[in-house]
Amino acid sequence: MDKFLEAALEEARKGYAEGGIPIGSVLVHKGQIIGRGHNKRVQQGSVVLHGEMDALENAGRQPASVYRECVLYTTLSPCPMCSGTILLYGIPKVVIGENKTFMGEEQLLRDRGVEVEVADSQECIELMQRFISEKPALWNEDIGV
Amino acid sequence: MDKFLEAALEEARKGYAEGGIPIGSVLVHKGQIIGRGHNKRVQQGSVVLHGEMDALENAGRQPASVYRECVLYTTLSPCPMCSGTILLYGIPKVVIGENKTFMGEEQLLRDRGVEVEVADSQECIELMQRFISEKPALWNEDIGV
Repeated sequence: MDKFLEAALEEARKGYAEGGIPIGSVLVHKGQIIGRGHNKRVQQGSVVLHGEMDALENAGRQPASVYRECVLYTTLSPCPMCSGTILLYGIPKVVIGENKTFMGEEQLLRDRGVEVEVADSQECIELMQRFISEKPALWNEDIGV
Repeated sequence: MDKFLEAALEEARKGYAEGGIPIGSVLVHKGQIIGRGHNKRVQQGSVVLHGEMDALENAGRQPASVYRECVLYTTLSPCPMCSGTILLYGIPKVVIGENKTFMGEEQLLRDRGVEVEVADSQECIELMQRFISEKPALWNEDIGV
Protein backbone atom coordinates (compact mmCIF):
# COMPACT_ATOMS: atom_id res chain seq x y z
CA MET A 1 0.00 0.00 0.00
CA ASP A 2 1.08 3.58 -0.73
CA LYS A 3 2.81 4.99 2.38
CA PHE A 4 0.47 7.97 2.62
CA LEU A 5 -2.65 5.83 2.34
CA GLU A 6 -1.06 3.63 5.00
CA ALA A 7 -0.71 6.73 7.23
CA ALA A 8 -4.40 7.54 6.64
CA LEU A 9 -5.27 3.94 7.59
CA GLU A 10 -3.21 4.25 10.79
CA GLU A 11 -5.32 7.29 11.66
CA ALA A 12 -8.50 5.32 10.94
CA ARG A 13 -7.32 2.50 13.21
CA LYS A 14 -6.54 5.02 15.94
CA GLY A 15 -10.14 6.22 15.66
CA TYR A 16 -11.42 2.65 15.88
CA ALA A 17 -9.32 2.00 18.99
CA GLU A 18 -10.82 5.12 20.59
CA GLY A 19 -14.35 3.78 20.00
CA GLY A 20 -14.86 6.25 17.17
CA ILE A 21 -15.66 6.12 13.48
CA PRO A 22 -12.63 4.60 11.74
CA ILE A 23 -11.95 6.99 8.89
CA GLY A 24 -8.57 8.63 8.60
CA SER A 25 -6.86 11.10 6.33
CA VAL A 26 -3.56 12.82 5.65
CA LEU A 27 -2.84 16.00 3.70
CA VAL A 28 0.40 15.75 1.74
CA HIS A 29 2.35 18.71 0.35
CA LYS A 30 5.29 17.99 -1.92
CA GLY A 31 5.85 14.55 -0.42
CA GLN A 32 5.47 15.64 3.23
CA ILE A 33 2.49 15.06 5.52
CA ILE A 34 1.42 18.52 6.74
CA GLY A 35 -1.79 17.42 8.48
CA ARG A 36 -3.22 14.13 9.70
CA GLY A 37 -6.46 13.29 11.43
CA HIS A 38 -9.43 11.02 11.93
CA ASN A 39 -13.15 11.33 12.48
CA LYS A 40 -13.91 12.95 15.87
CA ARG A 41 -17.69 12.53 16.17
CA VAL A 42 -17.45 10.30 19.23
CA GLN A 43 -14.22 11.62 20.74
CA GLN A 44 -15.11 15.36 20.55
CA GLY A 45 -18.84 15.27 19.84
CA SER A 46 -18.00 16.97 16.54
CA VAL A 47 -20.38 16.98 13.59
CA VAL A 48 -17.88 18.63 11.25
CA LEU A 49 -14.61 16.79 12.00
CA HIS A 50 -14.75 13.94 9.54
CA GLY A 51 -11.32 12.41 8.92
CA GLU A 52 -10.55 14.71 6.00
CA MET A 53 -11.71 17.82 7.88
CA ASP A 54 -9.61 16.87 10.91
CA ALA A 55 -6.52 16.44 8.73
CA LEU A 56 -7.11 19.86 7.15
CA GLU A 57 -7.77 21.45 10.55
CA ASN A 58 -4.58 19.96 11.94
CA ALA A 59 -2.61 21.29 8.95
CA GLY A 60 -3.62 24.76 10.13
CA ARG A 61 -4.05 27.92 8.09
CA GLN A 62 -2.26 27.53 4.76
CA PRO A 63 -2.07 29.87 1.79
CA ALA A 64 -4.10 28.91 -1.28
CA SER A 65 -0.85 28.19 -3.13
CA VAL A 66 -0.05 25.31 -0.72
CA TYR A 67 -3.46 23.64 -1.03
CA ARG A 68 -3.08 23.78 -4.80
CA GLU A 69 0.02 21.57 -4.55
CA CYS A 70 -1.48 19.06 -2.10
CA VAL A 71 -2.82 15.54 -2.36
CA LEU A 72 -5.46 14.48 0.17
CA TYR A 73 -5.43 10.81 1.17
CA THR A 74 -8.53 9.39 2.81
CA THR A 75 -9.50 5.83 3.73
CA LEU A 76 -13.10 6.33 2.51
CA SER A 77 -14.80 8.04 -0.43
CA PRO A 78 -15.37 11.67 0.65
CA CYS A 79 -18.91 12.73 1.64
CA PRO A 80 -20.50 15.95 0.31
CA MET A 81 -19.02 18.03 3.18
CA CYS A 82 -15.47 16.80 2.66
CA SER A 83 -15.81 16.99 -1.13
CA GLY A 84 -17.03 20.58 -0.87
CA THR A 85 -14.03 21.37 1.30
CA ILE A 86 -11.68 19.87 -1.29
CA LEU A 87 -13.32 22.18 -3.87
CA LEU A 88 -13.17 25.24 -1.57
CA TYR A 89 -9.43 24.91 -1.08
CA GLY A 90 -8.70 23.82 -4.63
CA ILE A 91 -6.96 20.58 -3.67
CA PRO A 92 -6.19 19.07 -7.08
CA LYS A 93 -5.92 15.37 -6.20
CA VAL A 94 -7.58 12.90 -3.85
CA VAL A 95 -6.50 9.32 -3.20
CA ILE A 96 -9.30 7.20 -1.73
CA GLY A 97 -8.84 3.91 0.11
CA GLU A 98 -12.20 2.50 -0.91
CA ASN A 99 -15.71 3.38 -2.06
CA LYS A 100 -17.42 0.01 -1.56
CA THR A 101 -18.93 0.70 1.87
CA PHE A 102 -19.84 4.33 1.03
CA MET A 103 -19.85 6.21 -2.27
CA GLY A 104 -19.21 9.92 -1.81
CA GLU A 105 -19.17 12.79 -4.28
CA GLU A 106 -16.44 11.42 -6.54
CA GLN A 107 -18.36 12.37 -9.68
CA LEU A 108 -18.80 15.98 -8.53
CA LEU A 109 -15.07 16.16 -7.78
CA ARG A 110 -14.19 14.81 -11.22
CA ASP A 111 -16.70 17.17 -12.89
CA ARG A 112 -14.89 20.08 -11.21
CA GLY A 113 -11.48 18.91 -12.38
CA VAL A 114 -10.18 17.11 -9.30
CA GLU A 115 -8.10 14.00 -10.00
CA VAL A 116 -9.66 11.10 -8.08
CA GLU A 117 -7.80 7.82 -7.57
CA VAL A 118 -9.44 4.84 -5.84
CA ALA A 119 -7.04 2.29 -4.35
CA ASP A 120 -9.78 -0.27 -3.63
CA SER A 121 -7.95 -1.37 -0.48
CA GLN A 122 -9.20 -4.56 1.14
CA GLU A 123 -7.85 -3.40 4.53
CA CYS A 124 -9.88 -0.19 4.33
CA ILE A 125 -13.00 -2.12 3.30
CA GLU A 126 -12.67 -4.64 6.13
CA LEU A 127 -12.17 -1.98 8.79
CA MET A 128 -15.30 -0.09 7.68
CA GLN A 129 -17.36 -3.28 7.31
CA ARG A 130 -16.44 -4.35 10.84
CA PHE A 131 -17.33 -0.92 12.23
CA ILE A 132 -20.64 -0.64 10.33
CA SER A 133 -21.75 -4.08 11.50
CA GLU A 134 -20.82 -3.22 15.10
CA LYS A 135 -22.28 0.31 15.27
CA PRO A 136 -24.80 0.87 12.46
CA ALA A 137 -26.65 3.73 14.20
CA LEU A 138 -23.44 5.69 14.78
CA TRP A 139 -22.47 5.20 11.16
CA ASN A 140 -25.85 6.41 9.92
CA GLU A 141 -25.60 9.50 12.12
CA ASP A 142 -22.25 10.34 10.57
CA ILE A 143 -23.60 10.26 7.03
CA GLY A 144 -26.88 12.01 7.85
CA VAL A 145 -29.11 8.96 7.38
CA MET B 1 -35.36 41.79 8.68
CA ASP B 2 -36.39 38.23 9.58
CA LYS B 3 -35.52 37.62 13.25
CA PHE B 4 -33.38 34.55 12.48
CA LEU B 5 -31.40 36.36 9.80
CA GLU B 6 -31.01 39.16 12.34
CA ALA B 7 -29.56 36.61 14.80
CA ALA B 8 -27.13 35.41 12.11
CA LEU B 9 -26.12 39.04 11.50
CA GLU B 10 -25.54 39.54 15.24
CA GLU B 11 -23.15 36.58 15.08
CA ALA B 12 -21.41 38.12 12.06
CA ARG B 13 -21.00 41.41 13.93
CA LYS B 14 -19.59 39.57 16.94
CA GLY B 15 -16.99 38.05 14.59
CA TYR B 16 -16.15 41.48 13.18
CA ALA B 17 -15.73 42.90 16.70
CA GLU B 18 -13.31 40.06 17.50
CA GLY B 19 -11.17 40.98 14.48
CA GLY B 20 -12.46 37.96 12.60
CA ILE B 21 -14.31 37.28 9.37
CA PRO B 22 -17.85 38.67 9.79
CA ILE B 23 -20.04 35.80 8.66
CA GLY B 24 -22.65 34.42 11.02
CA SER B 25 -25.24 31.67 10.98
CA VAL B 26 -28.01 30.10 13.01
CA LEU B 27 -29.59 26.67 12.69
CA VAL B 28 -33.33 26.77 13.36
CA HIS B 29 -35.46 23.76 14.22
CA LYS B 30 -39.22 24.24 14.39
CA GLY B 31 -38.92 27.94 15.15
CA GLN B 32 -36.13 27.56 17.74
CA ILE B 33 -32.44 28.36 17.33
CA ILE B 34 -30.58 25.15 18.20
CA GLY B 35 -27.12 26.32 17.13
CA ARG B 36 -25.49 29.67 16.41
CA GLY B 37 -22.00 30.60 15.38
CA HIS B 38 -19.61 32.68 13.34
CA ASN B 39 -16.45 32.20 11.33
CA LYS B 40 -13.52 31.23 13.59
CA ARG B 41 -10.52 31.41 11.24
CA VAL B 42 -8.86 34.22 13.17
CA GLN B 43 -10.18 33.46 16.67
CA GLN B 44 -9.35 29.73 16.69
CA GLY B 45 -7.05 29.39 13.70
CA SER B 46 -9.70 27.12 12.20
CA VAL B 47 -9.87 26.34 8.50
CA VAL B 48 -13.17 24.46 8.78
CA LEU B 49 -15.26 26.65 11.10
CA HIS B 50 -16.99 28.94 8.66
CA GLY B 51 -20.09 30.57 10.18
CA GLU B 52 -22.42 27.81 9.03
CA MET B 53 -20.07 25.05 10.24
CA ASP B 54 -19.70 26.74 13.64
CA ALA B 55 -23.49 26.96 14.00
CA LEU B 56 -23.83 23.25 13.16
CA GLU B 57 -20.98 22.34 15.49
CA ASN B 58 -22.56 24.31 18.32
CA ALA B 59 -25.91 22.57 17.72
CA GLY B 60 -24.11 19.33 18.61
CA ARG B 61 -24.89 15.82 17.46
CA GLN B 62 -28.44 15.66 16.15
CA PRO B 63 -30.36 12.79 14.59
CA ALA B 64 -30.95 12.98 10.84
CA SER B 65 -34.66 13.57 11.51
CA VAL B 66 -33.89 16.90 13.19
CA TYR B 67 -31.67 18.21 10.39
CA ARG B 68 -34.42 17.36 7.92
CA GLU B 69 -36.75 19.81 9.70
CA CYS B 70 -34.20 22.62 9.99
CA VAL B 71 -33.64 25.91 8.22
CA LEU B 72 -30.08 27.24 8.10
CA TYR B 73 -29.72 31.03 8.11
CA THR B 74 -26.43 32.52 6.99
CA THR B 75 -25.37 36.08 6.29
CA LEU B 76 -23.45 35.09 3.14
CA SER B 77 -23.98 32.70 0.23
CA PRO B 78 -22.55 29.33 1.36
CA CYS B 79 -19.19 28.23 -0.04
CA PRO B 80 -18.63 24.70 -1.41
CA MET B 81 -17.68 23.34 2.05
CA CYS B 82 -20.78 24.71 3.77
CA SER B 83 -23.02 23.75 0.84
CA GLY B 84 -21.66 20.21 0.93
CA THR B 85 -22.39 20.09 4.65
CA ILE B 86 -25.99 21.21 4.02
CA LEU B 87 -26.28 18.32 1.53
CA LEU B 88 -24.64 15.80 3.90
CA TYR B 89 -27.13 16.50 6.65
CA GLY B 90 -30.11 16.92 4.34
CA ILE B 91 -31.03 20.40 5.55
CA PRO B 92 -33.97 21.26 3.29
CA LYS B 93 -33.88 25.07 3.35
CA VAL B 94 -31.27 27.82 3.47
CA VAL B 95 -31.92 31.53 3.93
CA ILE B 96 -29.02 33.69 2.74
CA GLY B 97 -28.38 37.30 3.73
CA GLU B 98 -26.66 38.22 0.49
CA ASN B 99 -24.73 36.87 -2.49
CA LYS B 100 -23.38 40.12 -3.94
CA THR B 101 -19.95 40.02 -2.30
CA PHE B 102 -19.54 36.24 -2.78
CA MET B 103 -21.58 33.74 -4.79
CA GLY B 104 -21.46 30.27 -3.28
CA GLU B 105 -22.89 26.96 -4.49
CA GLU B 106 -26.53 28.07 -4.61
CA GLN B 107 -27.08 26.36 -7.96
CA LEU B 108 -25.72 23.02 -6.69
CA LEU B 109 -28.01 23.27 -3.65
CA ARG B 110 -31.04 23.97 -5.85
CA ASP B 111 -30.08 21.15 -8.23
CA ARG B 112 -30.09 18.78 -5.23
CA GLY B 113 -33.53 19.94 -4.08
CA VAL B 114 -32.60 22.43 -1.34
CA GLU B 115 -34.84 25.49 -1.11
CA VAL B 116 -32.65 28.58 -1.33
CA GLU B 117 -33.93 32.02 -0.39
CA VAL B 118 -31.79 35.15 -0.80
CA ALA B 119 -32.81 38.14 1.35
CA ASP B 120 -30.49 40.57 -0.44
CA SER B 121 -29.85 42.42 2.82
CA GLN B 122 -28.10 45.77 2.53
CA GLU B 123 -26.79 45.42 6.10
CA CYS B 124 -25.15 42.09 5.27
CA ILE B 125 -23.65 43.52 2.07
CA GLU B 126 -22.23 46.57 3.85
CA LEU B 127 -20.63 44.53 6.64
CA MET B 128 -18.88 42.24 4.14
CA GLN B 129 -17.82 45.12 1.87
CA ARG B 130 -16.27 46.92 4.82
CA PHE B 131 -14.42 43.77 5.94
CA ILE B 132 -13.19 42.88 2.43
CA SER B 133 -11.84 46.40 1.85
CA GLU B 134 -10.09 46.33 5.25
CA LYS B 135 -8.63 42.80 5.11
CA PRO B 136 -8.58 41.51 1.53
CA ALA B 137 -5.80 38.92 2.14
CA LEU B 138 -7.67 37.38 5.07
CA TRP B 139 -10.83 37.20 3.00
CA ASN B 140 -9.02 35.52 0.11
CA GLU B 141 -7.52 32.96 2.48
CA ASP B 142 -11.00 32.08 3.74
CA ILE B 143 -12.31 31.37 0.24
CA GLY B 144 -9.19 29.57 -0.95
CA VAL B 145 -8.06 32.28 -3.38
